[in-house]
Amino acid sequence: MEKLRKYMSARDEDQFYHQGAVELLVFNFLLILTILTIWLFKNHRFRFLHETGGAMVYGLVMGLIIQYATTPTNFESGTVYTCEKLKFGPPTVLVNITNQIYEYQYKRQINQHNVNAHQGNAMLQKMIFDPSIFFNVLLPPIIFHAGYSLKKRHFFRNLGSILTYAFLGTAISCIVIGLIMYGFVKAMIHVGQLKGGDFHFTDCLFFGSLMSATDPVTVLAIFHELHVDTDLYTLLFGESVLNDAVAIVLTYSISVYSPKENPNTFDAAAFFQSVWNFLGIFAGSFAMGSSYAVVTALISFIHLTKFTKLCEFPMLETGLFFLLSWSAFLSAEAAGLTGIVAVLFCGVTQAHYTYNNLSPDSKMRTKQLFEFMNFLAENVIFCYMGLALFTFQNHIFNALFIFGAFVAIFIARACNIYPLSFILNLGRKQKIPRNFQHMMMFSGLRGAIAFALAIRDTESQPKQMMFTTTLLIVFFTVWVFGGGTTAMLTWLQIRVGIDPDEDLKAETASQRATTADKNTTKAESAWLFRIWYGFDHKYLKPILTHAGPPLTTTLPEWCNPIAKLLTSPKAYGEPLKDDDMDCIVNHDELTINYEAPNPVPVPAQARIDSPQTPGKENIHEGDLGLGGCELHLEHTPAQTQLNSLA
Amino acid sequence: MEKLRKYMSARDEDQFYHQGAVELLVFNFLLILTILTIWLFKNHRFRFLHETGGAMVYGLVMGLIIQYATTPTNFESGTVYTCEKLKFGPPTVLVNITNQIYEYQYKRQINQHNVNAHQGNAMLQKMIFDPSIFFNVLLPPIIFHAGYSLKKRHFFRNLGSILTYAFLGTAISCIVIGLIMYGFVKAMIHVGQLKGGDFHFTDCLFFGSLMSATDPVTVLAIFHELHVDTDLYTLLFGESVLNDAVAIVLTYSISVYSPKENPNTFDAAAFFQSVWNFLGIFAGSFAMGSSYAVVTALISFIHLTKFTKLCEFPMLETGLFFLLSWSAFLSAEAAGLTGIVAVLFCGVTQAHYTYNNLSPDSKMRTKQLFEFMNFLAENVIFCYMGLALFTFQNHIFNALFIFGAFVAIFIARACNIYPLSFILNLGRKQKIPRNFQHMMMFSGLRGAIAFALAIRDTESQPKQMMFTTTLLIVFFTVWVFGGGTTAMLTWLQIRVGIDPDEDLKAETASQRATTADKNTTKAESAWLFRIWYGFDHKYLKPILTHAGPPLTTTLPEWCNPIAKLLTSPKAYGEPLKDDDMDCIVNHDELTINYEAPNPVPVPAQARIDSPQTPGKENIHEGDLGLGGCELHLEHTPAQTQLNSLA
Repeated sequence: MEKLRKYMSARDEDQFYHQGAVELLVFNFLLILTILTIWLFKNHRFRFLHETGGAMVYGLVMGLIIQYATTPTNFESGTVYTCEKLKFGPPTVLVNITNQIYEYQYKRQINQHNVNAHQGNAMLQKMIFDPSIFFNVLLPPIIFHAGYSLKKRHFFRNLGSILTYAFLGTAISCIVIGLIMYGFVKAMIHVGQLKGGDFHFTDCLFFGSLMSATDPVTVLAIFHELHVDTDLYTLLFGESVLNDAVAIVLTYSISVYSPKENPNTFDAAAFFQSVWNFLGIFAGSFAMGSSYAVVTALISFIHLTKFTKLCEFPMLETGLFFLLSWSAFLSAEAAGLTGIVAVLFCGVTQAHYTYNNLSPDSKMRTKQLFEFMNFLAENVIFCYMGLALFTFQNHIFNALFIFGAFVAIFIARACNIYPLSFILNLGRKQKIPRNFQHMMMFSGLRGAIAFALAIRDTESQPKQMMFTTTLLIVFFTVWVFGGGTTAMLTWLQIRVGIDPDEDLKAETASQRATTADKNTTKAESAWLFRIWYGFDHKYLKPILTHAGPPLTTTLPEWCNPIAKLLTSPKAYGEPLKDDDMDCIVNHDELTINYEAPNPVPVPAQARIDSPQTPGKENIHEGDLGLGGCELHLEHTPAQTQLNSLA
Repeated sequence: MEKLRKYMSARDEDQFYHQGAVELLVFNFLLILTILTIWLFKNHRFRFLHETGGAMVYGLVMGLIIQYATTPTNFESGTVYTCEKLKFGPPTVLVNITNQIYEYQYKRQINQHNVNAHQGNAMLQKMIFDPSIFFNVLLPPIIFHAGYSLKKRHFFRNLGSILTYAFLGTAISCIVIGLIMYGFVKAMIHVGQLKGGDFHFTDCLFFGSLMSATDPVTVLAIFHELHVDTDLYTLLFGESVLNDAVAIVLTYSISVYSPKENPNTFDAAAFFQSVWNFLGIFAGSFAMGSSYAVVTALISFIHLTKFTKLCEFPMLETGLFFLLSWSAFLSAEAAGLTGIVAVLFCGVTQAHYTYNNLSPDSKMRTKQLFEFMNFLAENVIFCYMGLALFTFQNHIFNALFIFGAFVAIFIARACNIYPLSFILNLGRKQKIPRNFQHMMMFSGLRGAIAFALAIRDTESQPKQMMFTTTLLIVFFTVWVFGGGTTAMLTWLQIRVGIDPDEDLKAETASQRATTADKNTTKAESAWLFRIWYGFDHKYLKPILTHAGPPLTTTLPEWCNPIAKLLTSPKAYGEPLKDDDMDCIVNHDELTINYEAPNPVPVPAQARIDSPQTPGKENIHEGDLGLGGCELHLEHTPAQTQLNSLA
């Protein structure tokens, strides 16, 4: 008997152990299938299905198989045991079952009405992995990668517009969706599909905020492949990256917004508390993320006497880069801030400063590492979304709510893009044309972030309804809008096949012709940016990287001793090369000041310092702008003066 | 009240959530410290502390801090609840605590006598992560990397010796340690430190097998840095890699060995069952691992008409490579085999076949990816070992047992190296000199595998005693032997600073002089290997890679249609290049047949097809042999004939 039990429990443990392997194997298998399918599609130049869409299809099929083809192994898991001795759930519970002590670990708190859903298929239960995995494991590399590859040539030129779309646009979108959904909820209560009091206005706003995170990964991949107009690409990419950060913090702020009395009435104090929360968390996360990146930049920049620089050891350098970036995420989480936002700004800052200090080997290693992690994580998430449609046990499909949500996201997207574009066009010298606006409207896909925000809490019935609806919206937008991108581009007559270098050359030429009358317009539209650029170029870059003029020339004379200490010896000896100068400077300033030493823009690939062979996939969004035109600038004192005047 | 509880539980969950972040942050912090320290040490050329040793020191310090500086937060976790309704532990338990239902997840079964250890520090409990993480997450990349970088020039030359040390040597080591420990256990029972019946002979053998896994990572790093004699390096590296696989399967076989009656008596049936188990699991894992690699090779080799090859899409290629290699591990686990062994042979096969088919970009990506994962995983494990000394709650320090273990591992290592070297020297033309034998004896460090095997089961008291002892042995060997490597090399007068190319040139020259009388000796020592080489070169390589002669020339004439189908078009057109030809062919065969077209061995870096700049860290054990001398061979029909005669 003793032996039998021992054997049983060993077998039992084995089963647990192996089921973990089987589970992962299922995911591996799905991803392998996805990769092979995409390979096939790439061969036939089918552009209507991106790898993420493919991953979703396979996930869906696998979910169907697991749901209907595996036999439910009914443990006695639906039963609830009552424990009167405890006051709240401890982290571990020891249970004595037939004289054998088992340790149980706290997993989560569940609602009464979800208990019966826990009965059933063990395989299924295993496939539903912990929602926090999305936030702690899968999203950080995706978001970091987005930040790390944000340093594109056209990004800084469009910074104002991008920030407007990301902050103001997301707020508009959140409120509009919230209001429309509140109308639908009222209608549902009226029809009797919903009990009053279950679904507050804050819940609607919560749904609005999570639905405001757009993720046009499919569209961007096609844009990249077809070489769509770079400004459009940058606007869309920049908006989608920053808007994730805004949506995440917004969702958090709304979820902690709790008016003291009736949650339906407006409470000014609680509202301002929420706004304050939003600002505090956003600023805190920003500071946390960028300070880790600054530390990384400083470490990789240090050049003590007798010390080999860290870049002599690419493995240590890459390791440090990876660990510090991850620490930015973890510290923010540990401090009660938002890790995702921290890791995003950490990525942006790493690309802006640290990247310049890395050895060529580490540049490539970090780039490829995060690209690879992004690729895997993205496909796992989309694969899981497909799985979740059939394996998640508490779906609540409500036709009216789903219909309402579809209506709401379209109206909200329209209220975001068209009015803001109109306002922006008042200030922009290069207007956002009508067809770009339509394309941005069309590119309001929902993806990983919306899903991760929705799955975070699926305990109450409103949240379950939201989760189901989010899932359907993701499916619909990724497949229909993602698949229709090429058709839409043709229909809107948007230029494709643009060589970014050609683009720049043409613009530079046209700007040279009209330099005289532009000097005034520009100062209006970009004055904030010019201040930042001047500060960054003159002080931050020289302190944190080898780029920029020596500090001795930019700081006032009495600062000379400090300046000498902080300036890299390289800054004096070597010709200065500012990797992202081309992202930052205004084009006619560039024409006036910097063109003489290097008048013809040499094709980028010829001077790229990454030693890769120029393959098809080399220039893409992960390229950190190096695939663009890299201008070698010779700083003369005259230029520096001009700069400081700007 | 309702609100308070809600708040409490939210806070509670928050705490859980954030503690996960804090925990990881501690590890990140330790790893960052380790990297910075190693950087410092590398600058001062201190070779007595490798990064793994450093990670252990920091882990130790952090363990001390956590143990003594954090306050114990005593939940009621020591209490055992009795549940009479259940017969065995279900995967999840729902507990109703003050009308709130909590879900608890099965963690493990624990012994009665360990219950009180669960009382105490919550931070501490969190830091002790699941032992299965070692086997499922941290070890696979390390082992795969070892396999993937095994394809060294000198490896195949020493294959016979390496296999002898790995298989026969590990068996000897296991039995010798088992016997000595059994003596000490008897002594302990005699002294009264141990109850009779607790510690069987099988337990001693179990300890012997887990202690037989050597891990001279520290020594190998120094060897690499100092360019120690390549034969010595290869012998040691090859032994340590294969011996891990043997030790893991051996440990498993011993742990399932259960004589029916008295476990102390010898049961022939059960013994043969165990041997059969060992062989079955080893062969099965080998087959599983290599077949996944063969699938990868075939996929990356496919060249259908109208199809772009997979290597046009490096990201897809790398993704597929990674996922299929991981699937080898998971499939083996799911099938009840040993994943680690499967992943090792998968790595070896991937390096031997698939690597040749990859695009240059993917070659580098895969190499760097696994190198990086290996670096991180290794340091995490050693860091955790340091932590475990103070944070593990069930240590049993028994001076006699520990002393016995130290004596046993030295005697066992001696019984492994010296007799086997003597026997091997009878057959080897290039003898293993006395000082190499001493160095191999000295390099019997214990590391990650021994630790992972020991921590897998720490429930019973003998197992806890073993775990504590293993930990101490790892500390001692890594610090003392690892730190003393440089001194030992000097003392044993082993040549350092050898340029592998020079080495080869010199040998080739000396062999050319004595070609005539060698032809007979070689046939004796390497006949098995020659058969394998001929088969591999003529059939497997052409089928799986672009290397080797076209199949049409090697297969009999009636196979021509199949041969044409299977042969890559490249094999006819391009000059054939067999990346690891230099690993495999006998040197004088090489001198006779292949020297004419390319008489002077050009320095490897000049022709290396990896586009990296030749940095300090480029040539190392992860270099897949490309850092060595790569000979471009022109196959003529005459050569092929000569080959087939060999």
